[in-house]
Amino acid sequence: MLRDLGSRDRGFLEVVGEIREKLLALGGVSRPEYECVLMQGSGTFAIESVISSAISADGKLLVLVNGAYGRRIAQIARVHAIPTEVIEIPENRKFRADDFVITEGTTHVAVIHCETTTGILNAVEEIGEKVTAAGAVFIVDAMSSFGAIPLSLDSAHIDFLISSANKCIEGVPGFGFILARRAALESAKGRARTLSLDLYAQWAGLEKDGQFRFTPPTHVLMAFRQALEELEHEGGVAGRAARYCRNHARLIRGMRELGFEPYLDDSDQSYIITSFRYPTDPEFCFEEFYSALSAQGFVIYPGKLSHESCFRIGTIGRLDESDIEELLAAVRKVRLSIRDEAQSSDGRG
Amino acid sequence: MLRDLGSRDRGFLEVVGEIREKLLALGGVSRPEYECVLMQGSGTFAIESVISSAISADGKLLVLVNGAYGRRIAQIARVHAIPTEVIEIPENRKFRADDFVITEGTTHVAVIHCETTTGILNAVEEIGEKVTAAGAVFIVDAMSSFGAIPLSLDSAHIDFLISSANKCIEGVPGFGFILARRAALESAKGRARTLSLDLYAQWAGLEKDGQFRFTPPTHVLMAFRQALEELEHEGGVAGRAARYCRNHARLIRGMRELGFEPYLDDSDQSYIITSFRYPTDPEFCFEEFYSALSAQGFVIYPGKLSHESCFRIGTIGRLDESDIEELLAAVRKVRLSIRDEAQSSDGRG
Repeated sequence: MLRDLGSRDRGFLEVVGEIREKLLALGGVSRPEYECVLMQGSGTFAIESVISSAISADGKLLVLVNGAYGRRIAQIARVHAIPTEVIEIPENRKFRADDFVITEGTTHVAVIHCETTTGILNAVEEIGEKVTAAGAVFIVDAMSSFGAIPLSLDSAHIDFLISSANKCIEGVPGFGFILARRAALESAKGRARTLSLDLYAQWAGLEKDGQFRFTPPTHVLMAFRQALEELEHEGGVAGRAARYCRNHARLIRGMRELGFEPYLDDSDQSYIITSFRYPTDPEFCFEEFYSALSAQGFVIYPGKLSHESCFRIGTIGRLDESDIEELLAAVRKVRLSIRDEAQSSDGRG
Repeated sequence: MLRDLGSRDRGFLEVVGEIREKLLALGGVSRPEYECVLMQGSGTFAIESVISSAISADGKLLVLVNGAYGRRIAQIARVHAIPTEVIEIPENRKFRADDFVITEGTTHVAVIHCETTTGILNAVEEIGEKVTAAGAVFIVDAMSSFGAIPLSLDSAHIDFLISSANKCIEGVPGFGFILARRAALESAKGRARTLSLDLYAQWAGLEKDGQFRFTPPTHVLMAFRQALEELEHEGGVAGRAARYCRNHARLIRGMRELGFEPYLDDSDQSYIITSFRYPTDPEFCFEEFYSALSAQGFVIYPGKLSHESCFRIGTIGRLDESDIEELLAAVRKVRLSIRDEAQSSDGRG
């Protein structure tokens, strides 16, 4: 990240080319059937580039929603005045092919792979089969899963997959990327509703001379190349999945011992991020719990559920079982010290 | 840049707050009259966020064009179907208030401060006076000038100024920023044509809890904080301007001695970037010249003019006169060695 290369420098363009090839390989595909496009900004920018570029003026999008990130895709479509149908199921239910019908006129279907709202893993393979059989284009937001949950774009019938530098590939934030079936990408030509997020133009620019159309975050890309090397070194997707699985198994076991119950059924739960219900203890105060853990160097996530009181703990990133054990020790300590304080202030009162 | 902070971490949010305050101060303004919004992506993303957020459905934009970056603003407006009038003058002429009239119905006027196509400096102060007198909103793209060319937003009647992390402030690329008159920013509410580039929502998010709506490039922001400190240490805008002026004066003098003539009149030329005409020598080949300089570690820019053969040399960034002298020595050496080769191959032929 400390190499300051020009965005037209030959060495930098080689790095960009290498990143694009390696991302395709991680998705189990290659050129010329599939292509990789990099897009500056956060993951949401990359999602918006697909939604606002891939669907023609007379297209219609179906969004399968079981959490906040599915709702965000529908929100993007609405901003661009794209005719959109939303099918929403409860946040604790995995989306399956049986959960929806594809109505007349639907040209595109979008779903989240791992819905970070809960950590649930949707059945993208069987959904993709149904979408393709109906002749629609399949868009998958794999923001928090790509690189750590095995997924072949071709077997899952995925036309556009979107992810970001700073999740399971363990790069630093600054860009997102899109893996696209070449035919679907080519049909996006001239459909874009923005300049910066024009997916086809971004691809055409990269193809023309290897350069981004607009200045890329060069240092972030250099860091990402290193992150990809570390991923290979760990044994690729399988190796990374194994570590995250161990992290997750240790977390679930330890949290159950401490009286915290996961929100989802074990069978629907990914090893990426886990939602835990607030304990039955009526004195439990999430803000207090969060701050005390944060003071010890452990940053957890607030819940994002519509109707349940939960918090979330991620098990991805440069973490292993020893980090999870330290976290569990901190949770135990925080819970005890909060109880002690409550009791001693009761005593004084 | 090597500190890996969470995007909701208190320490990170303090850095974001500090950056927003310091950018306003660099523009000679402060809250609550003016506000600062940071936007992920390249400078063009920040420009598009203003153009696609600030102008209402019944608004009309006038773009003053004397180069490629002015044309890009018009292109963004066209993509969003914003009624747009373009007034174009030759690329070697500075835009002044006399060069345009503001027609009935015009609500916004946009111009480039330093048009990087040539290095020309447009007369934003007098243009701003005319725009404000006509009751229109004034948008200035100060991408390549902000932080090194003194400019007070208030005295230049600027409502929206856009610039980027990686130009005169000498940060690394990954985000742009917008300084906006608060009243103009507030009127952008509900006008955005995208989700990611919604300027008002981005501001509202930063105001609510200090956080970006979507994951920011945290490491790039940490580097930017350091860049702002280095700018202060150099004596702020005046100190940086003085160094860039010395770089530019040394470059012009040296290049003239080597037979290269600047494209612009000295009086219109900024000290940011300079266009030089190709030498009269019919054997001059820009690609050969560029590659030979690049091999010696000096990366120059190809020309971007519509009708003239020029190349460009930037004098901003972490450079001083000794770097310019080394560049001039390299230019001399490259010119001589190309001539020698030409003569010796003539001899052999």
